[in-house]
Order: sequence, then C-alpha cells, then structure tokens
Amino acid sequence: MGKFIAIGERIHCISPVIRAAMDSKNPEPILKRAKEQLDAGAVYLDVNIGPAEKTGEELMKWAVRLLQENFDNVPLCLDTANKKAIEAGISVYNRARGKPIVNSADAGDRLSNIDLAAANDAICIALCAKHGIPSDNDERMAYCQEMLEHGMELGMEAEDLWFDPLFLVIKGMQDKQLEVLNFIRQLSDMGFNSTGGLSNISNMMPKHIRPIMDSVMVAMAIQCGLSSAIVNPCDVRLMETIKSADIIMNKSLYADSYLEI
Amino acid sequence: MGKFIAIGERIHCISPVIRAAMDSKNPEPILKRAKEQLDAGAVYLDVNIGPAEKTGEELMKWAVRLLQENFDNVPLCLDTANKKAIEAGISVYNRARGKPIVNSADAGDRLSNIDLAAANDAICIALCAKHGIPSDNDERMAYCQEMLEHGMELGMEAEDLWFDPLFLVIKGMQDKQLEVLNFIRQLSDMGFNSTGGLSNISNMMPKHIRPIMDSVMVAMAIQCGLSSAIVNPCDVRLMETIKSADIIMNKSLYADSYLEI
Repeated sequence: MGKFIAIGERIHCISPVIRAAMDSKNPEPILKRAKEQLDAGAVYLDVNIGPAEKTGEELMKWAVRLLQENFDNVPLCLDTANKKAIEAGISVYNRARGKPIVNSADAGDRLSNIDLAAANDAICIALCAKHGIPSDNDERMAYCQEMLEHGMELGMEAEDLWFDPLFLVIKGMQDKQLEVLNFIRQLSDMGFNSTGGLSNISNMMPKHIRPIMDSVMVAMAIQCGLSSAIVNPCDVRLMETIKSADIIMNKSLYADSYLEI
Repeated sequence: MGKFIAIGERIHCISPVIRAAMDSKNPEPILKRAKEQLDAGAVYLDVNIGPAEKTGEELMKWAVRLLQENFDNVPLCLDTANKKAIEAGISVYNRARGKPIVNSADAGDRLSNIDLAAANDAICIALCAKHGIPSDNDERMAYCQEMLEHGMELGMEAEDLWFDPLFLVIKGMQDKQLEVLNFIRQLSDMGFNSTGGLSNISNMMPKHIRPIMDSVMVAMAIQCGLSSAIVNPCDVRLMETIKSADIIMNKSLYADSYLEI
C-alpha cells in the first residue's frame, strides 16, 4: 500500500461557519477551510452536509463543483445520510485524482451504501459494526466479511472497501484500545484498506492532551497497517506524526524538508 | 509486561560538564542531571563513565553511592567497557528498587558481559549483533538465541536479558526501519524484554526534527512490544509519547493528569 491518506474532516455542517456558508451558498468559508486542510497535508476532503433531506442534491453538487474547480479536482469524501445527495455529488465529480468516497456503510441499516458505491464505481467506508459497538474482534471481522461479500457480489474491488475498525474513546474504554489496533493489523495482514474517525479516542480529554494522544494512536495504528484516517489536518502534531510515520514505514523518502512537503 | 522503562542517558562522560564532574568528584552537576531526568519520568539512570581503565572502579562506586543515596536507591544501568568498574559498582549497589543493569553485551567480543551479569545477579543489555550491523532479522535472532543460551547455561532468567535490536539511522538505512520494528515484535511475541538506543534513528537529522521522529518511532516500537529504551527523558515530546503509549497499551490507567505524573 502507498502513503497514508489523511481525509480532512473540517468541512462539516456541525460547524456554524460552514453551516451558514452551505445555507447561503457562500463559497469563501468553505474554500478557506479546504485550502487550510490541503496546505496542511490532507489528501481527500470530507464534505459533510448533514441529513440534508430537502436540499441535499443541489447542495452536494454545488459543494463538489466548488471544491474541485478551485483545488485542481481534489478528491472528495461525500458524507451524508441522503443517498440521493451522494449520487448527485458523484454525477458532477471529476475522478482525475481519485474515486469519490461514500461515507459510510455499516453491516446493518446502512449496508445499502455499499450498493450505492458499487453502482457508482466509488470507494465506500465500511464500518465494522451493526448494532452499536462490536463486542470483540470476532464480531468486527464477521461484519467485515459480510460487507466484503456484499460488495464483491455487486462487482466491487476489495480495495474499494475501506474498513473502519471503529475507534473507541479511551475515557471509558481504555482496555479496548489494543483490540482495535490488533484488528487494524488483521485487516492489513489480509491486504485490506482501512480508515476511521481516529480522534474519537481522545473525546472528553482536556484540550491540550488531545493532539498528543491522537498522535500516539495514529503512529501505532499506522504501524499496525492503518492506511487512512478521517482527521483534522490542521492539528500540526498529528500531521507531523503522519508524515514521520510514512518515513519510518518507508512509504515516502526521507529528506530534511519532509515536514514542509 | 509492565509499564515502559525509560533509561535516562544523560549522565554520560561524553558531556564536558559530566566529564569534569567525574574527574573532580564534584557531585552537583551529576545530581542536577539525575534530578532532571527523574522528574521527567526516567525509571533507570544510565551511568556512563567511558573506558575508565585506571580509575573506573573507584569512580563507579562513587557514582553509584552518590546517586542512590540522593535519590532513594534509584536503579542504575552501569555503562563502561571496564568490567571491574561494573563489578565495583554492583558491590555497593542497593537493589531495593531494581537489579543493576550491565550495559552491554553482544554476541561477539562482549559476550562475557553476560557472564558478569550472571555472576552478579544483574540484568544485561544484550545487543543482537556480533560484527557490525546484522544484515537481517534471521541474523539478529541467531545472536539473540546464542546470548540467551549462554545466559541460561549460566543460570540467568530469560527476563534479565534485555535484547537490543540495534536501532539504525534513518538517513542511510530508511529501508531497514520496518525490519527493526518487526524484530521487536518477534522478541515481544517470544516474551522477551527489549531495549535500545532509540535516538540513533534520527542521527544527522536537523535538530528540530529529532524529537518528532524519535517520538513516532518510540510509539511504533512500543506498539510492537518494546519494553524499554535508553533515551533523553528531558525530551518533552518523547516522554509525552511514552506516557500516552502506556495508556493506549493499557499499562497505566488514564487520568486527565497522566502527563504530570
């Protein structure tokens, strides 16, 4: 596998600034956040428009065009519960720099997002969960297999399913962290791509600790074979860690300037 | 295995301040560096007196007494090519907080340091090398087995051999880093303790990069099962990483104040 793929998470309607920009179709705040994330080393950008039940199709098309026109067809991760909005986004998406990612399917109610990805030749994030948090790695692997079989029956390549082990919060589930890392290693040993919302591990921790804990977790997870994560690329320590991890894993060539690249 | 053991490397005669303090038996600079390292989270302190062919015995006794009397019998790693100096140091060493460590044996000319450790009920750092840098992990493992057999014939416990995989410099040997990590995992899977001079990986890198690269490497190595390392505990980022790694590996219990402990 190649270099680690950081998916920038900051174009998200949970942010009041982004919410307002989406509501009023104001490009500036969205372009600003996109540029910050790309400058910091994001490869993909996540575009989360929320449930967007009424206006999702039009909104996602607008956002996809806006970002790809301004940033050389930057590859995007389309993030909404509105399937029609994802399809609308893909209909105007330029694949020059990578397939679109559907965010996300699981082995339960959201299994049909794999169908959506298969029908549109997209990558699909596949959460190894069905009803809540999986109790152990056997359960994670069972869901992984279910989703893999489903995708392959629909003609997908295995590499287009990016399995999410479900990162768990340390405060409350400290004893489960090693299990998640072991699962990432299992996925990697089987040749699968993986991703996930890594910063979930440091939820509820003091603000100054989060970049430290997130960095240590991402280094360990990359050592175990994690191939991607949905992160805040403007977290300097985290991105320094990801770039250094790629050097140690021999995925990118060392140069004294590697942190600036 | 328990929490990660940071061995503080800063009482080293290569430092002009420490060299002068050792020559003149001036306690202050040595006590100052000891306190800094212990405050920062070092568990063991390395005491490197150099070859010390003439005055080594007296010097090591002085240093051991000085440090243990002032820091509640702090456990020490005795580091010199002068075997009699190591034995002299052990003769006055208090084991209340841990066995002394002999630094170090290898599978070649320095094999007899294992005899020294065995005769004195000490831990021995055992470098998995014989003539220069081992060419691959099969060679590392062959030396590891040689030293293990030798130690066990002499009545040592396997847990008192701390195998050193030999960390290699990234600038020049970038493609060997994953091999070293894999070897650490092999050692860990076999139940062995491990240690090493971790900061060797960032030799010749710009000064601002070294703590970043060392931190990522230590996180990855701990994930692979590294149980100890010889480090500069005054490197804040490195110690933050080690403490966070112990949390993720479930070796120490999370508290919001864990970085200050």
